[in-house]
Formats: sequence, C-alpha cells, structure tokens
Amino acid sequence: MDIPLSPAPGRTAGIMRFVRQRIAAREWPPGARLPSLRAMAQQHGVSKSTVVEAYDRLAAEGAIRARPGAGFYVAGPLAPLALAEIGPRLDRQIDPLWVSRQSLDLGAQALKPGCGWLPDDWMPRDAIRRALRQVARDPAAPLTDYAPALGLPALRTQIARHLGTRGLAVDPRHILLTDSGTQAVDLLCRFLIEPGDAVLVDDPCYFNFLALLRAHRARIVGVPHTPDGPDMDRFEAALREHRPRLYLSNAGPHNPTGARLSAAKARRIRALAHDHDLILIEDDIFGDFESRPAARLAADDSRDRVAQVGSFSKTLSASLRCGYLIAREDWLDALADLRTATTFSGAGLTQAVIARLLRDGAWQQHTRLLRQRLALAMPRAIRLLGALGLRPWHEPEDGMFLWCRLPDGIDGARLAQAGLQQGLMLAPGNVFSQAQAAGAMMRFNVSQMDDPRLPDRLATLIRTCPR
Amino acid sequence: MDIPLSPAPGRTAGIMRFVRQRIAAREWPPGARLPSLRAMAQQHGVSKSTVVEAYDRLAAEGAIRARPGAGFYVAGPLAPLALAEIGPRLDRQIDPLWVSRQSLDLGAQALKPGCGWLPDDWMPRDAIRRALRQVARDPAAPLTDYAPALGLPALRTQIARHLGTRGLAVDPRHILLTDSGTQAVDLLCRFLIEPGDAVLVDDPCYFNFLALLRAHRARIVGVPHTPDGPDMDRFEAALREHRPRLYLSNAGPHNPTGARLSAAKARRIRALAHDHDLILIEDDIFGDFESRPAARLAADDSRDRVAQVGSFSKTLSASLRCGYLIAREDWLDALADLRTATTFSGAGLTQAVIARLLRDGAWQQHTRLLRQRLALAMPRAIRLLGALGLRPWHEPEDGMFLWCRLPDGIDGARLAQAGLQQGLMLAPGNVFSQAQAAGAMMRFNVSQMDDPRLPDRLATLIRTCPR
Repeated sequence: MDIPLSPAPGRTAGIMRFVRQRIAAREWPPGARLPSLRAMAQQHGVSKSTVVEAYDRLAAEGAIRARPGAGFYVAGPLAPLALAEIGPRLDRQIDPLWVSRQSLDLGAQALKPGCGWLPDDWMPRDAIRRALRQVARDPAAPLTDYAPALGLPALRTQIARHLGTRGLAVDPRHILLTDSGTQAVDLLCRFLIEPGDAVLVDDPCYFNFLALLRAHRARIVGVPHTPDGPDMDRFEAALREHRPRLYLSNAGPHNPTGARLSAAKARRIRALAHDHDLILIEDDIFGDFESRPAARLAADDSRDRVAQVGSFSKTLSASLRCGYLIAREDWLDALADLRTATTFSGAGLTQAVIARLLRDGAWQQHTRLLRQRLALAMPRAIRLLGALGLRPWHEPEDGMFLWCRLPDGIDGARLAQAGLQQGLMLAPGNVFSQAQAAGAMMRFNVSQMDDPRLPDRLATLIRTCPR
Repeated sequence: MDIPLSPAPGRTAGIMRFVRQRIAAREWPPGARLPSLRAMAQQHGVSKSTVVEAYDRLAAEGAIRARPGAGFYVAGPLAPLALAEIGPRLDRQIDPLWVSRQSLDLGAQALKPGCGWLPDDWMPRDAIRRALRQVARDPAAPLTDYAPALGLPALRTQIARHLGTRGLAVDPRHILLTDSGTQAVDLLCRFLIEPGDAVLVDDPCYFNFLALLRAHRARIVGVPHTPDGPDMDRFEAALREHRPRLYLSNAGPHNPTGARLSAAKARRIRALAHDHDLILIEDDIFGDFESRPAARLAADDSRDRVAQVGSFSKTLSASLRCGYLIAREDWLDALADLRTATTFSGAGLTQAVIARLLRDGAWQQHTRLLRQRLALAMPRAIRLLGALGLRPWHEPEDGMFLWCRLPDGIDGARLAQAGLQQGLMLAPGNVFSQAQAAGAMMRFNVSQMDDPRLPDRLATLIRTCPR
C-alpha cells in the first residue's frame, strides 16, 4: 500500500481531522458509512477532489476502508481500536499491555523485579511432577472427555473447603471453574456490562484491568487508593457523578500497592453498592498470600451483588491454567452458558491435577512456605530500594508487591525503557494508573529481587537515567 | 421476589407490551433509562398508577430494574439476554446450547448418538498417560511459568509441520495457541465484528456457532448447505442483501452434514470475498478426519482475508484443552494482545504434553487409526438407521457425522425430548438451523452407535413418538 508521506495540504488535513474526531468520539462507530464525497464536499465547502484525497489518506492510515462501489466505512476491527484507544495522556510505549508483553516474552536471562509473579524456583515443582504422575496412573482420571459445564466437581469441592478455612462459606454449586482468573473477570464483564457503562477501578490498579475494560469499551473511572482501601469521598462522588455499573477491585494484598482493605471501608462500600445498585467484582487472586485475613467486599449481606474471582496462578502454577468465579446461583447458569458459547468447556485434566494437590495438602503446605519467604523478602527489598533512594508508599503486611516512589526527577516510564535495554524488566507506575498520576511511582516484586546482580544494575540505571 | 401471577389488566398489559417491544428491538438497549412515569402516562393517555403497575410487573419479570431515586432502567445483563433472544420460532427447550448442556452434563451411563465427539475408549488414553509421565520427568518442562503470548514455540512448530503434511504452508509465527477452537473463533469475532454486523453461516451449521454469534449480537444469516458446499446463488444473494462482514464455516467433513467443499466453490467464495470485502473464518476442527484432503477456503491468494482455526479436542483429548488460530501477521499481534487482556496466557503444560504427542508421532498414528475405525462405523450406522426408516441426506466420505431425515411425521425436537427421558441423547436438526428449517432432520455420530442397547431403544423411541 502506498502511504502518502508528505503532509496533507490544509483543507485535506481539515477534513481528515474532522473524520478522525468523529471516529474517536465514536459518533461514527466502526462499520459506519462515511458521508458521500459529494455530501462531505458540500458540507465543508471544499472540492470533491479534496475529500477524495482526505479519504484516501485516511484509508492508507487504516482509519477507514473503501468498499468497491459502496463508499467508505469506518474501519473495524474492534479490538485493536479499543485497545489502542489510550488517549493522548499515555505514553504509547508504556500502555497497560506493555508489562504483560515484556513479562511473557522476555528471555529467562532477564532480571524481572517488575514482574507480577513469583520466580519459577519458588513454585512447588516437585509436587506438580508428583501429581502429574499420579494422574497418569489414575484409572478414573479425566484424560480425554469434556469437563462438565461448571468444571470438575472434585476441584470445586476442594476450593469450597479451602475457602471455608479462610472463613468464606461457599457452596461448590456456586463455583464455576474457568481457564484463568482473568477469564473469570472477562466473563463477568461480558455478562454484566454494556459498551459505555461506567466501571470504577482503583487508581492505581492491576494494569490488565485497564486493558480488559478497554476491550469491553467501558468508561473507566479511577478512584484514588489509600493504604486501607479506596478514598471514600472520591468513591462516593464517582458514584453520584458516573452512576457506575461495577466496581472492579482486588482483595487481599492489593495490586500494585499492597494496601489492605479495612473492615469499615468494606462495610461502607457494601452499603453504597446496595443504595446505588452497584455490582462488585472482587478479584481475590492474591488472597492466599495473607497471613492474617483482611476484610472482603463479599459478606453474607452482599452475596447478591458481589462476584468473587480466584486462581492458582500465583501460588501453584501459571502453566496449569485454572481460575474460578463465585457468584449467585441465578447468574451462574447464564455465566456457564456464556462460557460454553465462547470457549466450550474447561481443562478437565488440569483441574484434576490441581484437585489432587489440594486434596493431599501439598498446595496448602506450599502456600504457608511462600508466606514465610515473602515475609523475609519484603524488608530485604525495602532496605535494598531505600539505599537507592526509593521510598515505599506503604509497608505492606504481606504479598509480593511494593509500591515505591522514585528519587526526585526520575520518570518511571523512562527508567523502564532504559532498563529494558539492559535486560531489566521494571513496572512503571503509570501502567497502573487510569489518571496517569503515577509517573513517579514503580511497582516492585520482592520475590524477584534476590539476584546478586540486581542492586548494581538498578543503581547504575537510576544514576544514568536522564532527569 | 413477589411475581404477580394474575394477568395484567388491559391498559397495564398494553404498556408492558410497548416496553417489551422497544427492548426486543434494542431501541432501548440494556442500561437505557425508561421514560419517567409521568412522561409515559401522558404519552399513552393512561394514569400514572397504570404505568407504575406495568413497570413493577416488568421489574418482577426481570426485564427492567428500578434504581432507587433514579427511575427504571432496561435490565442487563448482556449475556443471558443475548443468548435467550432466540425468537418465537425456536423451541426454547431445544436452543443451540441444549446439545452442549446435555452432552457435557449427562452421566456416563447415557447413550449419546447425538454427541459431537468420539467415545472415551476411542481416544489415545495410553499415549496421553505416557506423555504425562514424560513431561513430569522432563527437567525443562514448563511446569509453573506463564506461556509466551503466542503459546509454546515447540507446539507451534509441530502444528506448522503437521499442516505442511496436509499441504498447508504455515509459518509457526502466524500461529496463536488458544485454550480451545471455540475460543479461537470467539477471539476472531471479538476482533472482527461489531454488534449488528451480518455474519453468514451455513444452514445447517455447528450449533455453537449460533450461540457464539448471538453472544456477539451479530445478525446471523443462514445460507442453505449442499453436499459440496453452500448454495452459491443464495450465498451471492446474501452478500448483496446483507453486506456481511464474515462467513464462518467449517472445513473438512462439515458439521452436521458431512458435506465436502468442492474446489470450484472454494475458488468462487474466495473471489466473492475479495469483491465484497468479506472475511472468511474456516474452522478446520474436523480436518484431521479426512482420508483425502478436500478443498479449503484458505489458499495462497486469500491469506489476507481467511483465518483458520484448529484444535486437538476431537482427535486427541478434550480434557487437554488447546486450540489454535492462523491469521495474517498484522492481525496476530492484535489478537495476541486481546487474548492477553481477556485470558492473560495459555496453558503451557497442556501445550507441552500435546507437543510431545505430535513430536513422537503418537497422535499422527492414532488419527490414522481413527480414520479407519470411522470408515467402518459409517456404513454400519447407515444400515442401522436405515432399518429404522431414517435416510441419510448424503453419504459422507469421512468424519463422524451423519445427517439424516427422520421417518415422516416425526419431529426431531420432540424425539430428542422423549429420548432424554430414556437416557438417550439425540441432536435434533433445528439446533443446527438458523432458519429452523431442519425439524425433520437429526445428526448422528457414527462412533457413538456401537452400544448393543441402541437399536432397540431407538426403535422403541421412534415407534412411540407421537406424530
């Protein structure tokens, strides 16, 4: 395709800007037919050839498409448009998918203090090998058949039992197994929201919530987070101003801040949810890292408007993919149907391996060990970073994340870009921030900071980073 | 909730009907605010209390929701609405999800001639056990880490190699691994279509395509199918009339008809796709059952507008969940991002087990065996059904499906309902038909018909079915 590289002349550029604005505002959604050449020319008082040139340039850019004999249309596809719609405030190099891409595709040699999971050698590899061998021997193992629509009953029972030990009474019939915690959140969003619905998130929040909600074309509204939960004045103001349909948050040690929801705020949010017809999605993926259970949004008086999400990716394996969601019974049937329509069924064999690790206690024993290791790693990381001039926003009680303020004048995105050149994967604050208010912050994973090369590399990076 | 059971009085019923029609036509989409009580009363010349009663009854039905102090809103959630929007023509008991639900959740005792997959004991259980043990021993096995965004390179390489033996030259870098073939189709739909876009499907087609497209709110347009592909006159007429964005079909032995696309029709569809800016999704999930490769929509001159989907669910295991999609390079990046946003990453361990089964040739050897068994089962099933008065629409060259006409006067939906009472799972024609034109048809799976109890049970069922 010949993309004209010379700048467009004034009138042509004007038409192009007009079209781009309509598309950006979604007044002209993907697939909409553009005004005819003649109509556009008349409306803007330009010649038809000016409009032809503007449309051709926009088509070359991929913003619109020509259909032979049928005019010009706003280009799909939906997804890249929705995901790329990041707005002018955000550095395109550091969008919410940036951390995912770097984490998933960087080589094993890279140091990853910005990564969102534990190092491979912290994971229960021997227990997994043993469970694989046991399942391979088990004559009743679900080796080839489709799993039931809600997932393997044995694993749903184990999950209910485990949540019981954490004080959450859940009936296994209210648990739907999914292929990941993210997929559970995605299913709930498909089920609950319409394009244009407002959704509240914490600012900062898990960056993939932002990418996911953009794929759903939600109106994302960030509420500043504090060490004991959202800023409640801002939360209430956002309810009044935006009438959101959902509040999507993560319980347990908060990602990225390590904050801990207080019981008073949890109660207040439940009461507000009731009054404002707000649905709460509580992503509890880090809950098993808590030494002392914090408050949860889910409680007996809120079951009808809270859905909870969990997964084994952080404590057991992200390669044995399995998540789950807990929701009221009348939603669960529809969610199971939606899941069948969109992925058919779950991974029975994976579910059987995990059920075995829960049944024989190997997983529970391992998570206790993880909590102990993290409790030692946290103060070590605080000392290491403190020596480099980074100050924690809050000292988390547990979990793997430490949210830090960078030395004055250092921009997180720039530091992360420079780090990448040197095989150092960092998580700059603004990928977590809907308001792009965290340019001076950075998330660290305390479990990924034991490599002896790290302190020097980080020190050099900070010293040489342009301010 | 108190649902008023007495019939609504005339004026109230009139208002309710008016609201329901607006909602059904999506003039008032989920989340839209209903007119105020006063405005509605004025507009329809009724009292405010009549509108109050109508709204209350609609809220009790779940069609609308009250927000305290803020009026009434069209109820979400999206999904159950979209999936339940089946229209008056279709028997709600036998919707496109009916077969899925019955197949996934019926006990192992049930006879399943209507099921869409091979019996458990036709599957390579021993080879899977062996591969599990090998992976458990392999020091380099991806036991705990997240898989790369496109999926495990070893499996992508094996898939490209296998497709090469079938005459399809595919670069492993153009393959994205997913958790199922269905998920691959779903991702493509999320990427390519907008609510309201027209999508062509075969009539009859795989029933889950209908459920999936409804979840996307596509306008589904069925094109009658023939033994060598779609009816081309109707296909072209549909292109002109509906300007569809996509044609979603399945290659190889067609589900449910066992039809085989001719090379001439494949060429014609490619040419039309080019002229009408149509994108083709070719679900090739049954391709490995072909003894003699049939034509495909994907060809060297159409790579830019064809996406292909495959999976191992039918030939290897549906419990080791893994599908894949092949698409042009510039789509693949965006599809991988969309997948990261919505499910994060794939099941690395499952991918490693499958890669091993492909690498050592166990899977290839097993699929050869399956083709031989199916070639023997097909004529057996035709004889068995013929003796009961069922005639094949077409005698398929390969695959597991046989599309049959029922004896005169027998309705497939009714027969399937009666069958279920007797532990017999059947697949009535209309779940496959967008036009609901297949009430006299039924899909049989020849691999599921060797149980000696089947002939008598089926004979009794047909004899006693009311005509």
